[in-house]
Amino acid sequence: MHVLVLGAGQLARMMALDSAPLGIEIRAYDVRSHTVVHPLTWHDYGDDLSAGLAKADVVTAEFEHIPNDILDAAEATGKFLPGAEAIRVGGDRRKEKALLDRVGVANAPYQVIESIADLHAAVDNIGLPLILKSALDGYDGKGQWRLKDEDGIEQLWQELSQFLQNNRSDQAIIAEAWIPFDREVSIIGVRDKSGQSHCYALTENHHHDGILILSIAPVADEHLQTQAQDAFEKITSELNYVGVMAIEFFAVGDSLLVNELAPRVHNSGHWTQQGCFTSQFESHIRAVTGLPIASLDPIQPTAMINMIGIDHIPDIVFNTAGAHPHWYDKEARTGRKMGHINLISADLSTALEILSCKLSPENFAGLLAAVTKYLNK
Amino acid sequence: MHVLVLGAGQLARMMALDSAPLGIEIRAYDVRSHTVVHPLTWHDYGDDLSAGLAKADVVTAEFEHIPNDILDAAEATGKFLPGAEAIRVGGDRRKEKALLDRVGVANAPYQVIESIADLHAAVDNIGLPLILKSALDGYDGKGQWRLKDEDGIEQLWQELSQFLQNNRSDQAIIAEAWIPFDREVSIIGVRDKSGQSHCYALTENHHHDGILILSIAPVADEHLQTQAQDAFEKITSELNYVGVMAIEFFAVGDSLLVNELAPRVHNSGHWTQQGCFTSQFESHIRAVTGLPIASLDPIQPTAMINMIGIDHIPDIVFNTAGAHPHWYDKEARTGRKMGHINLISADLSTALEILSCKLSPENFAGLLAAVTKYLNK
Repeated sequence: MHVLVLGAGQLARMMALDSAPLGIEIRAYDVRSHTVVHPLTWHDYGDDLSAGLAKADVVTAEFEHIPNDILDAAEATGKFLPGAEAIRVGGDRRKEKALLDRVGVANAPYQVIESIADLHAAVDNIGLPLILKSALDGYDGKGQWRLKDEDGIEQLWQELSQFLQNNRSDQAIIAEAWIPFDREVSIIGVRDKSGQSHCYALTENHHHDGILILSIAPVADEHLQTQAQDAFEKITSELNYVGVMAIEFFAVGDSLLVNELAPRVHNSGHWTQQGCFTSQFESHIRAVTGLPIASLDPIQPTAMINMIGIDHIPDIVFNTAGAHPHWYDKEARTGRKMGHINLISADLSTALEILSCKLSPENFAGLLAAVTKYLNK
Repeated sequence: MHVLVLGAGQLARMMALDSAPLGIEIRAYDVRSHTVVHPLTWHDYGDDLSAGLAKADVVTAEFEHIPNDILDAAEATGKFLPGAEAIRVGGDRRKEKALLDRVGVANAPYQVIESIADLHAAVDNIGLPLILKSALDGYDGKGQWRLKDEDGIEQLWQELSQFLQNNRSDQAIIAEAWIPFDREVSIIGVRDKSGQSHCYALTENHHHDGILILSIAPVADEHLQTQAQDAFEKITSELNYVGVMAIEFFAVGDSLLVNELAPRVHNSGHWTQQGCFTSQFESHIRAVTGLPIASLDPIQPTAMINMIGIDHIPDIVFNTAGAHPHWYDKEARTGRKMGHINLISADLSTALEILSCKLSPENFAGLLAAVTKYLNK
């Protein structure tokens, strides 16, 4: 049995590590170099996309910003799960918002922006402040703007129209209400081929400069967990989805509003590698290959901390009890996610200890603030 | 950082899987094909032994039956841990027995057999029944004989002398007392570069036809645990050992006698993959690369069941809650270890359920008897 993953980054790598014990081989199609490689060793199999697709028993994806021709080729094989439409929904904020409205899952009020008149209308209908996001290719806070007052409309529109002009023809801008949330949480779930949904415990997420820096799980809130699972079931049923999906929410009081969804394994689910009896990577591969889903129960409270912009695992990580590093072996670049740490601990106060050693020099202040807030809750 | 493992079997494969998250690459030297390969993908790096040794930062081993010239070449690099002498002790029963006597660790009375007169003397000095074992190349019950009464001496000697004649010139036979043990247990421990020992909880092992079929851990017996750790420290200190070592014991009442030691990660330590916060594979790689040893604490009771002589993972394994398969992707052969299952469970009665589905058709009766005995204890 062998699975071809569209995308050859750390998510494919971690799928490979967790699939080997199941006797399932993972190969990865790198959309930049157009080669089929092993996502751990980078061995090049010498196949192009069509050969890679033909040889695979199952095709899946590790990211949603996949060129249309590649999605079409994958879909045409009849072996692609969760399938092109689910990937497109995750990669296009217009489709995502329309889906959420269609299935009746609460999300921030929004409007598509095509002119300065649309911007004025959005301010009237939705209110200020507004968050503006590109419909396509947005990730880690890229392609986002904020409108605080009406005086800024003119200048913002100049920026937005410039952005649209320099971008692909199907690009668009979505204006959304700024949600004064109490916390950000996400649900990682998996839907199997029989249509059964299985969800991990909710995770609380902390971002800095638009990048996830810390996830803590499980969030012990039955009410929120139920809402999140309900959203997961509605969304994945509508898409006839198979595999792992992550849904990010804003929690406002005891209500959840969807922020965005990812039709794949997700950074906020990395804690499951040490924190649960089965990781999100194994669950995804089990689902798309038709195997039964194993226990998603948590083992212990777990904090996932991203290692950002550093070029090696700091000694303190190896020296801290309960800290499990996961290095991606990528070329170091400023602001790049280079790996993560799963910290297993009964009280998680050790998280603070690790973080105070400036694991992520670029956003140390943000990390520290997030953990301090969590610990004082 | 990259580690070359002498031997390219499932143990090197599992080291590779657990080393990738640490940012450590594993390559494996296959002593049969004389090639350096990746132990997961079998990608051939095109290096011979000396190139493989030269490129590695650290050299280690996954088995003890390594030809002398290879051990010498590895030792000469100054990068080989636990080192040639430790591997030779594990691979030669004469050296092993001498070491145990030297450090004062209890083991079965024995005698080297070089003639029929030695056999008669062994019967007089040690008593009957006797177990006879080849000093070199013995594993999984191969190279073993049993002497029940004096009438059998003549015929046994014919077999033994035939065996010695057809074997390598440094081969020998060791006669040992048959130990009427209550149970077989093993300790998996790791000694770091600073000389500090760390041990996992004791494991109870069950064999059938000389092959390990089942390990159950932890064995909750503080008295036995202390004895085992004491033996581990004495043996590894004497060898100035660095890395994981497994020591198998016969438990007779509340005393332990060493059966044999393995200077490497070991089949009876596979339960640590799901059963502990850190696996034996990660612990070994941490030790030989000079990283601190992480927590060896158990998570939950775990049963390790070998999959023997079958050509795929049976559906029942995927369908059983708490069962984690580990497939080795080897060519199927009668009696060959093809993979194992770690069964995590609070009561382990599900173990019986899995086993009753004839996971290992060749030794089903033995498996069933072992588990029944365990459950009724």
